Amino acid sequence: MRVSDSLFGGLFERGAADTSDEAWLRAMLDVEAALARAAERAGLAPSGSGAAVAAVARVDFFHNANLSTAAASTGNPVPALVKTLTGLLPAESAFAADAIHIGATSQDIIDTAAMLLARSSIDAIMTDLRAAAARCAGFAREHADTVMVGRTLLQQAVPVTFGLVAAGWLTEIDEARQRLHEVRTTRLAIQYGGAAGTLASLGEAGPRVAELLADELSLPAPTLPWHTNRLRVIDLAAALTGPCAALGKIARDVTLLAQTEISEVHEQAGGGSSAMPHKQNPVASVVILGCTKRAPQLLASIAAAAEQELQRAAGAWHAEWQPLSDLLRLTNSASAWSVDLLTGLRIDPLRMRANLDAGLGLPMSEHVTALLTPALGRLQAHQLVARASQRATANGINLAQALLIDPETAAKLAANQLSPDQLQTTLAPTTYLGATPHFIDRALRAHEVLEPTLAD
Amino acid sequence: MRVSDSLFGGLFERGAADTSDEAWLRAMLDVEAALARAAERAGLAPSGSGAAVAAVARVDFFHNANLSTAAASTGNPVPALVKTLTGLLPAESAFAADAIHIGATSQDIIDTAAMLLARSSIDAIMTDLRAAAARCAGFAREHADTVMVGRTLLQQAVPVTFGLVAAGWLTEIDEARQRLHEVRTTRLAIQYGGAAGTLASLGEAGPRVAELLADELSLPAPTLPWHTNRLRVIDLAAALTGPCAALGKIARDVTLLAQTEISEVHEQAGGGSSAMPHKQNPVASVVILGCTKRAPQLLASIAAAAEQELQRAAGAWHAEWQPLSDLLRLTNSASAWSVDLLTGLRIDPLRMRANLDAGLGLPMSEHVTALLTPALGRLQAHQLVARASQRATANGINLAQALLIDPETAAKLAANQLSPDQLQTTLAPTTYLGATPHFIDRALRAHEVLEPTLAD
Amino acid sequence: MRVSDSLFGGLFERGAADTSDEAWLRAMLDVEAALARAAERAGLAPSGSGAAVAAVARVDFFHNANLSTAAASTGNPVPALVKTLTGLLPAESAFAADAIHIGATSQDIIDTAAMLLARSSIDAIMTDLRAAAARCAGFAREHADTVMVGRTLLQQAVPVTFGLVAAGWLTEIDEARQRLHEVRTTRLAIQYGGAAGTLASLGEAGPRVAELLADELSLPAPTLPWHTNRLRVIDLAAALTGPCAALGKIARDVTLLAQTEISEVHEQAGGGSSAMPHKQNPVASVVILGCTKRAPQLLASIAAAAEQELQRAAGAWHAEWQPLSDLLRLTNSASAWSVDLLTGLRIDPLRMRANLDAGLGLPMSEHVTALLTPALGRLQAHQLVARASQRATANGINLAQALLIDPETAAKLAANQLSPDQLQTTLAPTTYLGATPHFIDRALRAHEVLEPTLAD
Amino acid sequence: MRVSDSLFGGLFERGAADTSDEAWLRAMLDVEAALARAAERAGLAPSGSGAAVAAVARVDFFHNANLSTAAASTGNPVPALVKTLTGLLPAESAFAADAIHIGATSQDIIDTAAMLLARSSIDAIMTDLRAAAARCAGFAREHADTVMVGRTLLQQAVPVTFGLVAAGWLTEIDEARQRLHEVRTTRLAIQYGGAAGTLASLGEAGPRVAELLADELSLPAPTLPWHTNRLRVIDLAAALTGPCAALGKIARDVTLLAQTEISEVHEQAGGGSSAMPHKQNPVASVVILGCTKRAPQLLASIAAAAEQELQRAAGAWHAEWQPLSDLLRLTNSASAWSVDLLTGLRIDPLRMRANLDAGLGLPMSEHVTALLTPALGRLQAHQLVARASQRATANGINLAQALLIDPETAAKLAANQLSPDQLQTTLAPTTYLGATPHFIDRALRAHEVLEPTLAD
Repeated sequence: MRVSDSLFGGLFERGAADTSDEAWLRAMLDVEAALARAAERAGLAPSGSGAAVAAVARVDFFHNANLSTAAASTGNPVPALVKTLTGLLPAESAFAADAIHIGATSQDIIDTAAMLLARSSIDAIMTDLRAAAARCAGFAREHADTVMVGRTLLQQAVPVTFGLVAAGWLTEIDEARQRLHEVRTTRLAIQYGGAAGTLASLGEAGPRVAELLADELSLPAPTLPWHTNRLRVIDLAAALTGPCAALGKIARDVTLLAQTEISEVHEQAGGGSSAMPHKQNPVASVVILGCTKRAPQLLASIAAAAEQELQRAAGAWHAEWQPLSDLLRLTNSASAWSVDLLTGLRIDPLRMRANLDAGLGLPMSEHVTALLTPALGRLQAHQLVARASQRATANGINLAQALLIDPETAAKLAANQLSPDQLQTTLAPTTYLGATPHFIDRALRAHEVLEPTLAD
Repeated sequence: MRVSDSLFGGLFERGAADTSDEAWLRAMLDVEAALARAAERAGLAPSGSGAAVAAVARVDFFHNANLSTAAASTGNPVPALVKTLTGLLPAESAFAADAIHIGATSQDIIDTAAMLLARSSIDAIMTDLRAAAARCAGFAREHADTVMVGRTLLQQAVPVTFGLVAAGWLTEIDEARQRLHEVRTTRLAIQYGGAAGTLASLGEAGPRVAELLADELSLPAPTLPWHTNRLRVIDLAAALTGPCAALGKIARDVTLLAQTEISEVHEQAGGGSSAMPHKQNPVASVVILGCTKRAPQLLASIAAAAEQELQRAAGAWHAEWQPLSDLLRLTNSASAWSVDLLTGLRIDPLRMRANLDAGLGLPMSEHVTALLTPALGRLQAHQLVARASQRATANGINLAQALLIDPETAAKLAANQLSPDQLQTTLAPTTYLGATPHFIDRALRAHEVLEPTLAD
Repeated sequence: MRVSDSLFGGLFERGAADTSDEAWLRAMLDVEAALARAAERAGLAPSGSGAAVAAVARVDFFHNANLSTAAASTGNPVPALVKTLTGLLPAESAFAADAIHIGATSQDIIDTAAMLLARSSIDAIMTDLRAAAARCAGFAREHADTVMVGRTLLQQAVPVTFGLVAAGWLTEIDEARQRLHEVRTTRLAIQYGGAAGTLASLGEAGPRVAELLADELSLPAPTLPWHTNRLRVIDLAAALTGPCAALGKIARDVTLLAQTEISEVHEQAGGGSSAMPHKQNPVASVVILGCTKRAPQLLASIAAAAEQELQRAAGAWHAEWQPLSDLLRLTNSASAWSVDLLTGLRIDPLRMRANLDAGLGLPMSEHVTALLTPALGRLQAHQLVARASQRATANGINLAQALLIDPETAAKLAANQLSPDQLQTTLAPTTYLGATPHFIDRALRAHEVLEPTLAD
Repeated sequence: MRVSDSLFGGLFERGAADTSDEAWLRAMLDVEAALARAAERAGLAPSGSGAAVAAVARVDFFHNANLSTAAASTGNPVPALVKTLTGLLPAESAFAADAIHIGATSQDIIDTAAMLLARSSIDAIMTDLRAAAARCAGFAREHADTVMVGRTLLQQAVPVTFGLVAAGWLTEIDEARQRLHEVRTTRLAIQYGGAAGTLASLGEAGPRVAELLADELSLPAPTLPWHTNRLRVIDLAAALTGPCAALGKIARDVTLLAQTEISEVHEQAGGGSSAMPHKQNPVASVVILGCTKRAPQLLASIAAAAEQELQRAAGAWHAEWQPLSDLLRLTNSASAWSVDLLTGLRIDPLRMRANLDAGLGLPMSEHVTALLTPALGRLQAHQLVARASQRATANGINLAQALLIDPETAAKLAANQLSPDQLQTTLAPTTYLGATPHFIDRALRAHEVLEPTLAD
């Protein structure tokens, strides 16, 4: 775990990905160095130029504060970075100066650097998500038969198992992983177009240098420079929103299941309170939600920035940089937290069963209705059970008892050979799990099929 | 073109897709009818049930106002729709009642209906986008050599061709099409899980009915019901944001190039003004922007709604329906408008050339600098040209003249065998187009490769 | 209650406000009629012109579909509306033609119409919010002493009363009402500037006509036309987000307190389920959340549209209309639902007490710690109570018992004259309500002070 | 100007406001020190406690990294900060330990610290906005008569003056200032409620301590603690969006008016390009847009976070902190940049006039139509002028000439005593400025009235 130096870094910058300003600087220098090597390979710069530039393209030779000040007069830090980089060449490497920034515009450097940051951040996120998915798969297997009540609109509905809940979490994480993997392998690309996307200053050599630059950075070369075609960035941002959606849903579920009155799951290390000694706050879930709730608006910021003018934009491009950094960082933070959350999550099957039983059989009302329907018709069955449900709640008796306590209903059931034993059996949650095992199997099988495809 | 009955429909509901409330009702009825057929095929309902239900699942048998009123007591219109549907069965088809809504919860019907609306809307959008892309490809070919000035940060920069501009538009539309096609074929799916995603009321038969329902609707069956896994909806919304981004960029470019002072392109049917007889407003572009500017926030609404509780959500799901409808409709409207815009777009190569020439050779300053650099070094060359650029602007002379008018510079050039003729030649825009033809070719080739893959 | 004809209108269009396309048309015609009267009063049109125009400016003389089709060639429906309106003048009123649309541009009509819709919608919203606030005030008074457990991070924390909860709801609604009232009285205004905000076609008479138009519509005249200054619209949208935030919070609280396992409050008319006869869904809360969750993004759409070009915008203005309509309608729908929700809300004081008691005294842990601190120091007191809290939970005994069951702790307490009776007394929730009555009083007093100021 | 140490700080952190993590730490310590003083004044802590705590509540005694790490186990940095603060008390000040954090919960400290940061940031923003408004007022006066063409939908429309443009900018900035001032004086407030908003640990003394804390910090005490009533934060965020909207509009206008082909205004220090020596990029405008384009989504993030559960929220509150910091910082950065932009903005009246004249009189078409209407009727006049406008553009002659060149039209005009001289006079832009001077006066007067009200 990399904890940044910042006050809130332990919360919002958890995870191995680095999107700090220093990381941006390093990425930009990596791009400049790669470009110099590419120029050399293309025969546009003397032999040794690439190595000479790489030797001085080191973060510790630069001062962010100076670059930042200079950026104010050009609108971005690249011109100052290029000037500094050139000045750093020792006399014996002066020949390499022409290789620096050759053919490029500032946006080429910043966009390509953003792709490098995105790639390393995605790798960190994918590592975390794999661990989170594995833990969900474990839960799905271990708790395939752990019965609990399903809740819809926050009301007890019908039985499910915790394994099915975990299978749902697994499937969502896996779908998010699959898309993120696709974007990482097909939508990241170098940016290299020069002033207006023609690479004019390189004459005929432009496309060749572009290919070599792509090779140096192990990134694809795009069909065209994408200075004002921002679909790659939108695709990236949308793919990052996937894990945020999945993890936000899981964290929301955990906060609900961990409520004092429900207590079906607990975070391992519940957060204490300085004032209230008894408190066990679901800290990981809360912080995950603190990260994931921001993703939709960061995505919107990036999507809104896509309306970029002509050959290079006047403002919208600048509005992308920090939201993209934020989204990479927060997605990684949420995914890193989710590993802790899921690894440490304690499941309480007894409490799950107790909460279900406390429902007085009402979560089986659909099942009971099905039992009565052939004899009484759907409408009458529904009405009898609805009224019995109210009696059950009012009197603290279970649904079977509440049906039988009403003489008229009891007579009707008896007349139709529906015995009290049958009623009681129908209230057993395990008799009403439907396709639960089937769905858990499907989720696990899909996970097994997916896993190796993400390894490449 | 379908123009809705609404006041603003001509603007924001252009396009063949129908996401009206009537279309929603029709889609819900289609799902109920398909479900009845699936139940019959699975042996859960008497032969003829499917046909009997389909016979009454007709929009004109229902009143939206009644369903809407009833929806207020259940939170959605499906229970009232089911009740009405059942009541519509004639006596001789009463046997089919059990097939209606079998195993389903309201969300199953609404989510699957949303997928049907999405599918038909995407088809309409794709048809429009194909036409738009074809027109861009036409422009890319026809105007491959039509020189114009490239503009960055809204300032004249270096030459490009209009063919390259159109190739950029083409590539962005094509990328958006490709993703939308992927989502249409891989991410739409039926929703069918019953009360809490277990299909419990169907016992063992649930998965089989799900498969048959999927078959009836020609939609995939998902790994699991996705009641509170909303990644499909996010993927769909994100894929719709793609064409909006592409078309918004094109419309922004057109409004800029059509400015009175630039006048390089014109919409065929410029919109008149009741007050100003001379006005030729870029109406199509303006309305496209009026559609596309809303996409990022609609996407954010949908992404934010993904934090859904436990087995079915208390509020967030309801917040998805209208934003998804809006996004489908606006994307289709923008794409329909774009066909008109691009089909009618008039290009003015003479004006493009005139605007470039009015730049006094300044857009070639990078080229001139490159000419001087071998002799003078990059720094001195840059300074001489920067100062000459100011002289050119101040005096209305071209950049070559502005260099030569300064005696000191003229002497320096002469001393280095840099002739006035060479300078003037360097100012010819066609000498500084770099990889422009190469990039246009790449875009056209990628388009040709893509096209057949979208046909299935 | 106005239920629209639409399928979802019962959910999302509840409330008296009308923002339909017909309402827009009516508002535009009202503006045109008012303008004709203003022109007559200013001496720019013959006597009787205003009445003649008003006589034909009737919704039933217009067809939205025709206007919508025509709008496609001008980018908005006003030119066609003006033409139709002029054509409707009977021969004897032909003299009034010059008064129609005098001095105006289309945006003048649409913006002013939007202000009229906003005003009537706000009035409807304010009526609902007054009722909602009154009910909250009633709860605050009636349940000032109804003890329940306060919950933080969804965990039981310390006692509060339901009266305090309701006082919090009241205060938030009242703050929202105050701001909405301010915006209604100070930020709505006519729009009247002509083609580029100079009213040039009226010569010197422009400002006088503007004043008269404002007088006709009972709206303020702004300092300047605000064609591309959209702060009014942002202020309006932000003020509408206030009630949405307040009501969304209340609805969220109700869904949580109404959970089966908590059951402290219930909606009067719990929504049934077609499948599950026992279900009592919190429909009003769920639909309120379905409305309020969309407000932030609609606000963002409107705020993002403020970057409008020069004298009148190319796209951004068009992107405002529907989001503003949506926001007015959804805010009204949420406020209308909230009246039902709060009017029918049933409070269960016994269950509140039972849930608190089920906490085994842990919600009083802070209080117990305070009792022990003088003798043992804060740190040791905290540790003893923290450990006892775990024992209490593990063994199902209350916190006092859990302290005394540990011999070492018991000895320490005895040595410090801390008796078991004192401990038990400290566990009484009513001894630990702090400023609760004070805060309830403050909220009620603030409400009483506010109420008359909103009446004007 | 404070330029942060970060790579992009020169762009996005310009302005005197400090919202860094260090500033957050300082603000939290200021709150804790003020609380200790308040406790002492309330008689709840020994004399000297406030001073003793203040003596150690110094930023340089704390390490953000340590607090950040500790925050990961409690969900926020306050518990660790309190522990460290207590530990820092020297032996002779040990008595002050009980005053530390008395009655408070972590959220009390963080929310109040946020209000302190907001206040100081608003002060910095208001200082910048005053300077920006003053410069706009200067432009409005100096260029009241500087005629230029007004542009609608990016097309030349009718004449305005640059003074009127600047008056529009002024009015929008002033409206934004007024609202920001209101929020600063009426909506910022301390947060102080303890664990669940009852201040229970202080018994009866809670409200008195709250008052004293408010006094210490010169912030109002609210009606109630606002732990889960987030309207204050929404109001603050919305008020910050105001200047962003105003400055974004101005920056957009400048980028458009500074286009090479229009060149009516220029930024003083146009940003150079490393590649293109002639470039003069509108850097300030571009960076302002890079800031302001993010405001709507940050506002949406904050508004979406308002749905907070019960007594304190599980996630949504955490999602507020960084968006609020970002919005304060970016608003300040945009306002600081706007001072540079407006101070250095060079206006080119000759070019304005030339661009208007290049319009061939078409921007006067409305005026010409008005001249012809009494004789020919509105419809025929409009048609003649529309056709003449096309002839003018096609032949490069002015609108009067284009009317007269058509024999039929010329005859018609002559028959109606409409002389060529009259036509030419009608083409003079200064004859068609309407209420321009009146509106400029109104804006300046409103500015003068506003200014002193913002001084308190």
